[in-house]
Amino acid sequence: MPQPDDRQPGAVFTTRTPRVVAARRLQRRRDRDETGRFLAEGPQAVREALAAGAVVELFFTADGLARHGDLVRRAGTGTGSRASAVDDDALAALAETVQPQGLVAVCAQRDVPLADALRKAPRLVAVCADIRDPGNAGTVLRTADAAGATAVVFAGDSVDPYNGKAVRASAGSLFHVDVVRARDAAAAVAALRAAGLRILAADGYGETDLFEVPDLGAPTAWLFGSEAHGLPGALKAQADARVRVPILGGAESLNLAAAAAVCLYASAKALKESM
Amino acid sequence: MPQPDDRQPGAVFTTRTPRVVAARRLQRRRDRDETGRFLAEGPQAVREALAAGAVVELFFTADGLARHGDLVRRAGTGTGSRASAVDDDALAALAETVQPQGLVAVCAQRDVPLADALRKAPRLVAVCADIRDPGNAGTVLRTADAAGATAVVFAGDSVDPYNGKAVRASAGSLFHVDVVRARDAAAAVAALRAAGLRILAADGYGETDLFEVPDLGAPTAWLFGSEAHGLPGALKAQADARVRVPILGGAESLNLAAAAAVCLYASAKALKESM
Repeated sequence: MPQPDDRQPGAVFTTRTPRVVAARRLQRRRDRDETGRFLAEGPQAVREALAAGAVVELFFTADGLARHGDLVRRAGTGTGSRASAVDDDALAALAETVQPQGLVAVCAQRDVPLADALRKAPRLVAVCADIRDPGNAGTVLRTADAAGATAVVFAGDSVDPYNGKAVRASAGSLFHVDVVRARDAAAAVAALRAAGLRILAADGYGETDLFEVPDLGAPTAWLFGSEAHGLPGALKAQADARVRVPILGGAESLNLAAAAAVCLYASAKALKESM
Repeated sequence: MPQPDDRQPGAVFTTRTPRVVAARRLQRRRDRDETGRFLAEGPQAVREALAAGAVVELFFTADGLARHGDLVRRAGTGTGSRASAVDDDALAALAETVQPQGLVAVCAQRDVPLADALRKAPRLVAVCADIRDPGNAGTVLRTADAAGATAVVFAGDSVDPYNGKAVRASAGSLFHVDVVRARDAAAAVAALRAAGLRILAADGYGETDLFEVPDLGAPTAWLFGSEAHGLPGALKAQADARVRVPILGGAESLNLAAAAAVCLYASAKALKESM
């Protein structure tokens, strides 16, 4: 049986429609890397993606149209984007959660070169080095955005920030900040310093107590390391200071996302006060 | 075939040994509630559980004994605890992760009545109201412990803090702080206030900016609400202030664990400075 495709206006796509098949492959990193695209699901992510001009194609069900007709219309009338009706099975195949509310968008990846992000003279940057957990990657994106960071650098062997779980955990922040991928973490840190940013390494064993860092209101890049191993020694050595969040009770450490929240908000408070 | 049990010293238990079967049922909330016991896996959790006197029985494999003989010996010689050898299949059945390093312990739940926790005159308390995600529950426990909170109250219809995922996310902190379960959240808040604690409700739409809360060094109980719905209106109204973590970028909000980290550490810093 022939499948509807984009030569049939008004068709409802199924799991076997070529464009749905191709979109579904974006659940795999290899296909995301090859195409420079990724999937974002649910109305919040789709709204942010549309605002950022990142949507290539929005797949919607009848239910999605009924509930979020404004988003479907914006995708359908936007320059460079289109909206395509799909059946419930096709949407379920494209979505990784059970509640995408009838919407899944194919988006263009948004990486910018570090030099472009630095041209905006950021006052707060988060650098994730070798972080492996996509939920943590997305949470750090969301927290960095909330704290006023304008760029997040995924350095070294970090997880793909366009992984579905990372996209969901970022709660739209992936579309707000400059996302930079830098394979060479040391070179990225050198560029951040050359741009006038102080480099602070978050390190549970650091010599400097977060509560005692002088001049936190200076433009700062925070380095965060992997969940299991922390920051590589060479990166820690490259930093201007290794800063520990003080542990006041019996816990051995904080998890990555909590430590990042405390560090980034310590800078945010000082930056706000210095303005 | 008869199975080894505790009448056969030196036996290696299997998945069909009655005590292993009973322990495995603790993966279900109903059985945890009925027995007042729960499971903790891996060397870090087992070490903390032993230090807290919470271990009832430590199941270990030959590999677990080789790697963590000190823990096995402490469990085997402790008052009220014992150590039991199991085969690899039995350990795999008891564990929820792939890397428990040959150790799973049956522990006694550690709830204390709120009155007992308050008798210690805590200066920082975290209250989780209606939080549903076990990973968040465990992360808040860990962060609260790190920030110097001495009690964490699970109020209203909150997730079971002895859920395996919560135990793992707490990274041992479940064994450090006073864990309180309070079905009636309003009564718990009233008791906290009567004990001299100021009540601050974390609320994304709160009238008070976290950066502008006066006298954060006063003894404080922080209230955190559910991931999806925030705090119930009645609890917010009961608080002395509704405090928002300021959002400086494009994010709509912080996730629960990040907001809790920022709020608890704001208090921790002020408490430390006031000492």
